[in-house]
Amino acid sequence: MSLTVVGSVAFDALETPFGKRDKILGGAATHFSLSASFFSDVNAVGIVGNDFGDDEWAVFKRHNVNTNDIEIVEDGKTFFWKGKYEYDMNVAHTLDTQLNVFETFDPKLSDNSKNTNLLFLANIVPMLQKGVREQSNAKFVAMDTMNFWIDSMKDAVIDTMKVVDCVIINDAEARQLADEPNIHVAARKLMEVGGLKAVVIKRGEYGATLTTENSYFAIPAYPLESVFDPTGAGDTFAGGFMGYLSSQGEITEETMRRAMVYGTIMSSFNVEEFGTERVVRLTQKEINQRFADFKRFTHFEEIPFEKASSAV
Amino acid sequence: MSLTVVGSVAFDALETPFGKRDKILGGAATHFSLSASFFSDVNAVGIVGNDFGDDEWAVFKRHNVNTNDIEIVEDGKTFFWKGKYEYDMNVAHTLDTQLNVFETFDPKLSDNSKNTNLLFLANIVPMLQKGVREQSNAKFVAMDTMNFWIDSMKDAVIDTMKVVDCVIINDAEARQLADEPNIHVAARKLMEVGGLKAVVIKRGEYGATLTTENSYFAIPAYPLESVFDPTGAGDTFAGGFMGYLSSQGEITEETMRRAMVYGTIMSSFNVEEFGTERVVRLTQKEINQRFADFKRFTHFEEIPFEKASSAV
Repeated sequence: MSLTVVGSVAFDALETPFGKRDKILGGAATHFSLSASFFSDVNAVGIVGNDFGDDEWAVFKRHNVNTNDIEIVEDGKTFFWKGKYEYDMNVAHTLDTQLNVFETFDPKLSDNSKNTNLLFLANIVPMLQKGVREQSNAKFVAMDTMNFWIDSMKDAVIDTMKVVDCVIINDAEARQLADEPNIHVAARKLMEVGGLKAVVIKRGEYGATLTTENSYFAIPAYPLESVFDPTGAGDTFAGGFMGYLSSQGEITEETMRRAMVYGTIMSSFNVEEFGTERVVRLTQKEINQRFADFKRFTHFEEIPFEKASSAV
Repeated sequence: MSLTVVGSVAFDALETPFGKRDKILGGAATHFSLSASFFSDVNAVGIVGNDFGDDEWAVFKRHNVNTNDIEIVEDGKTFFWKGKYEYDMNVAHTLDTQLNVFETFDPKLSDNSKNTNLLFLANIVPMLQKGVREQSNAKFVAMDTMNFWIDSMKDAVIDTMKVVDCVIINDAEARQLADEPNIHVAARKLMEVGGLKAVVIKRGEYGATLTTENSYFAIPAYPLESVFDPTGAGDTFAGGFMGYLSSQGEITEETMRRAMVYGTIMSSFNVEEFGTERVVRLTQKEINQRFADFKRFTHFEEIPFEKASSAV
């Protein structure tokens, strides 16, 4: 199967307690497509300015990401985000946002991008997400969103949810979207919106959960002794999740569970270095090794207990 | 194998957003021994006053907990704790603590309690924990502690750690004890203190981790749609963990992993109602059912991925 992602392609300026970068490749569609590229062919749909150079294009090319649907605005500048993290890396502090060409982003999918089996709607205005979904013939569509849209246009977010198969969001977004503090109840409430086959909730260092109509699945995070830069972790998770599903013959409870683990593994690599730096030099062998480690870290046998001595 | 626990036996007054109780059975040794009683014979070592009545003794008796080593101070009152929880149940607000007879607690183990294979030192003054350990012939000893002792006498806590096999603490305690924000690094640092075979870190709604010399194991929490009263959850976890180990022929990585799951399961029951109310009417069938559910919630197959199409 094949996969299309629609979302931001950007330059990021990042500062963490461990160092800084003034201008590096970033954006949701970038992190997603590089992560997914280890599993599937990927079409990226986005928009950039004339400052997007050969070095940036080369990164996509090396990972065989099809960039034909990334529009280039010749007199424009690429979306720029500047952020800072303190030691508590769960919270990003935005220092500067320059939407630039992204402000006029009105995604038009080529036939090639329309006809992939899977589609991921990265975090953009919910109405645009819905428009893209309507252009696409994909059989499995997932979406992200963010607190900004839930605050300002929750109805539009819900409207878009109704036409997709899966949401991949973080725990705070799930709580806010469902207006419910308990994430398990929140997941169930979101499943009732209609149409959704799966709700994926990302909990950062605490793991992730998958709620489907008849099942529930939870995994811890891959244990990392340090997190260098969390930027793009969520999109890298989604890229591993959707990329793995795209590589499989069908989407079942079993393939979605393994997809959750691949999402976890890919995001664990992502946060080890700045931006895309770690993911771009990953090998399939490293990914499989970390999957095997993760299986080892989480495996236990079920042996029903029978009390031998005095009964209770 | 058999099991001894040394710790508080108490009356609690509890208030949560869901209700209140003025005087119910509580205390670390109580929660621990009731939980462990589903897996093993248990000796409880503690101290109570003359206000400890037939109803309280009957609870222990129904669960075949041996209370011969619970000292009764005829002119004293039982340890009393009054606490309150807000909607964020991770934090208990202490409203009143009356140590009463617990202030003079100087545990003396009978031969029966000395000669169990396993010993759990619930949260008491670290020097007392050490003294109990020295009285005991147990082959596997675990301890708990709390922020109060780490603040006021960290060296004594470390001293006690050196003579036990396992610590079972929460994430905040692990961070504070190791002076290290990352819990995986903290667990490794604690393992280096000397003598420890295992570090168990309880993370509440986020699950638990087990660090041993050559391995790491992590599980999510059992998914609960509501938490009614978290009092005693940690001791109930420890009771399930140690109780299960006590039921097994030997303590191995495999039995410890299953013990982690039983700890998780038992604490998930504990928080569903006030105090010991849920655990006292549990059945082995319910425990095994929840274990099976937990296995289903966390299981995935490892199938190494091989990218079929264009190589990366």
